Amino acid sequence: MSMIICNTGMLVQTREENIAFTAGKDMAVLPVIENGWLLIEDGIIAGYGPPETMPSFSDAITKLDAGGGYVFPAFCDPHTHLVYAGSREKEYTDKIRGLSYEEIAQRGGGILNSAKLLHDTPEEELFRQSMDRVNEIISFGTGAVEIKSGYGLTTEDELKMLRVIRRIKQETPLTVRSTFLGAHAVPALYRNNRSGYVDLIVNEMIPAVASERLADYIDVFCDRGFFTVAETARILESGARHGMRPKIHANELDYSGGIQEGVKHGALSVDHLEFTGDEEIRALLGSGTMPTLLPGAAFFLGMTDPPARKMIEAGLPLAMASDYNPGSSPSGNMKLVVSLGCIRLRLLPEEAFNAVTLNAAYAMGLSETHGSITVGKKANLFITKRIPSYEFLPYAYGSNLVETVILNGEVVFSQQSDKESS
Amino acid sequence: MSMIICNTGMLVQTREENIAFTAGKDMAVLPVIENGWLLIEDGIIAGYGPPETMPSFSDAITKLDAGGGYVFPAFCDPHTHLVYAGSREKEYTDKIRGLSYEEIAQRGGGILNSAKLLHDTPEEELFRQSMDRVNEIISFGTGAVEIKSGYGLTTEDELKMLRVIRRIKQETPLTVRSTFLGAHAVPALYRNNRSGYVDLIVNEMIPAVASERLADYIDVFCDRGFFTVAETARILESGARHGMRPKIHANELDYSGGIQEGVKHGALSVDHLEFTGDEEIRALLGSGTMPTLLPGAAFFLGMTDPPARKMIEAGLPLAMASDYNPGSSPSGNMKLVVSLGCIRLRLLPEEAFNAVTLNAAYAMGLSETHGSITVGKKANLFITKRIPSYEFLPYAYGSNLVETVILNGEVVFSQQSDKESS
Repeated sequence: MSMIICNTGMLVQTREENIAFTAGKDMAVLPVIENGWLLIEDGIIAGYGPPETMPSFSDAITKLDAGGGYVFPAFCDPHTHLVYAGSREKEYTDKIRGLSYEEIAQRGGGILNSAKLLHDTPEEELFRQSMDRVNEIISFGTGAVEIKSGYGLTTEDELKMLRVIRRIKQETPLTVRSTFLGAHAVPALYRNNRSGYVDLIVNEMIPAVASERLADYIDVFCDRGFFTVAETARILESGARHGMRPKIHANELDYSGGIQEGVKHGALSVDHLEFTGDEEIRALLGSGTMPTLLPGAAFFLGMTDPPARKMIEAGLPLAMASDYNPGSSPSGNMKLVVSLGCIRLRLLPEEAFNAVTLNAAYAMGLSETHGSITVGKKANLFITKRIPSYEFLPYAYGSNLVETVILNGEVVFSQQSDKESS
Repeated sequence: MSMIICNTGMLVQTREENIAFTAGKDMAVLPVIENGWLLIEDGIIAGYGPPETMPSFSDAITKLDAGGGYVFPAFCDPHTHLVYAGSREKEYTDKIRGLSYEEIAQRGGGILNSAKLLHDTPEEELFRQSMDRVNEIISFGTGAVEIKSGYGLTTEDELKMLRVIRRIKQETPLTVRSTFLGAHAVPALYRNNRSGYVDLIVNEMIPAVASERLADYIDVFCDRGFFTVAETARILESGARHGMRPKIHANELDYSGGIQEGVKHGALSVDHLEFTGDEEIRALLGSGTMPTLLPGAAFFLGMTDPPARKMIEAGLPLAMASDYNPGSSPSGNMKLVVSLGCIRLRLLPEEAFNAVTLNAAYAMGLSETHGSITVGKKANLFITKRIPSYEFLPYAYGSNLVETVILNGEVVFSQQSDKESS
């Protein structure tokens, strides 16, 4: 099974060496090859190069004419909650009326609202609803996604979510990483017994999840009003004993100490980071923990963004994710995340692309096989419409420019519009 | 030529009476009919109603099954500059590096950059590039659009732009209104002779445009660093003598007096309005001039938004437009404008939909025939995918939910995705 992609405008994010991530000034470097070709063999990138190096191929090899479109490595989305039941647009209208995230949570809305809906939704129906979102993000060019539990908040319902995530992993061409997030919120039943809920997570949920090998990572919402640093430590230690590396929510609502705690426990990533100061930056430098920003959530909630430029200038790497979830960011459109990175976080297009490909792959433990056009990596790619430059992608912020999506070397999506008017 | 749309989730913005626009508290009212039907005859809405009132039709009538999708009146976009040559994403990267709109203009970038590109682009090529944008906005559900000149800045090039706009009007199913915007910027040749350029507009451009009947409206960028109130008055008076009603850019960069000047000259709309205070609101109240906000531009430039809530609470109507242009808002996606209206301007979904349908139609002189589901109006509609509520449209801010677009009673776009993965 071989395929050659030819007649490209540009190959973007071509990396000869298999590096783990880019940081600081290097984030502004985005290697490209103009008018390149790319060879896929058995679902793997087998070669690529400038036009003059294109070998001659037998007619047996499938040729895919990119029509001048650009070829990018598929987006990696290292932070989503895309397995959920229903939607929360009515609550969103309440937010427009001025209620805060925390007020909505205190009224039993927010995460607890999603938990109730999820409990009442059969597993098959939950899978069906989630697959609509999965198919949509594939059509938007995502090739690898991390999905969290955390709308269950009982052992049974957390396992139900994780089984749906496993089924998405098995039945779709996406690369999926699953994260156990029992500590997403304190359920109503434990409102006056927080430590009882942490006991449940540690004594019952984590062993159950581990025994079925349902989660790659463990997450805690370590923030004001959610879980404390001490509770986070206890949960992460238990997770570690069961082989789950941390990947946590931190510093969305306050200087919560979550970033430092994540680094201390060797977290693969710490995510959100709206409240990041000098101390947090110092903790992250050289740590191997990927700071992961979720600009869709700050945009949708009208919150202040993290100091992305300051973080890059301090030498940090950055990843970005969609945070696809029904409350704070009901979108999995990673191209729009690139635009939000440029528009709101003031990232250069090169920095934004590194943040959603190579660095995002690292943030989900996949940078050896995903996130760049590198020989030996998975052939997860998307091809755009004809565009004048890669900067055009974030610039044309309302356009859908992804035309063809290739996962594991197979075309899994192609956009065919019936424009009778043209 | 008759068609019946059936099996709808909801008909949205159904208005029995043909009203001009909604204002103040009434903007929060969005009439709907659940599971309705809609009859089209000869390109006109001939009837609609709840399911129990659906008449029986002969087999000769085309039936369009909406599959549970919602039926909306097509978006009206009353402020665009979508006829332009090339794109300006490199300059956008300069903006990310921190240069202001005015600094870029002073360096000969901005509008003058587009003017140079437009001058060097043959009319046929300008038409071709613009048609790509036109076809895209049709696919996003826009049915009526206002398009401005203003990247010519010489008589010859302004006429070239307006001829392209006329050709779009003739060759596409969109309803098009054209606006002469010679006073978009002072061209380099007149940098030290502003009054000379105003003379040129008044003595040469306006008569030439009028003699070919190329423009419905006249526009001036009345703001700090662009045209003064006195210059604006002179241009609008000349336009009025030639039958062009004003529709002006005002108060984007300062309390420029532009709003008051627009109202004084009976402008159909005043657009942008980032700098709107009590005095401006008083001028607008009861004026018949539609305040038109362009949230895409403030979003893309990272600027502060106009005080939309204050304006509605004062009893004003509001319209929204995309401002589709290569510098400050390179997107014509009106569904995203609805999201930006809710997210950034804190409009309720009902207010946002009124702003992009009925009130937007008024802002381009079309509310008698566009902007609502009303018997006798043009059958310009779009049908969504299955959605749980109309609030879902702005909420799912990254999703493309428009599935079928009907203009003049004909299906002109339908989304057909090839999802091999599902």
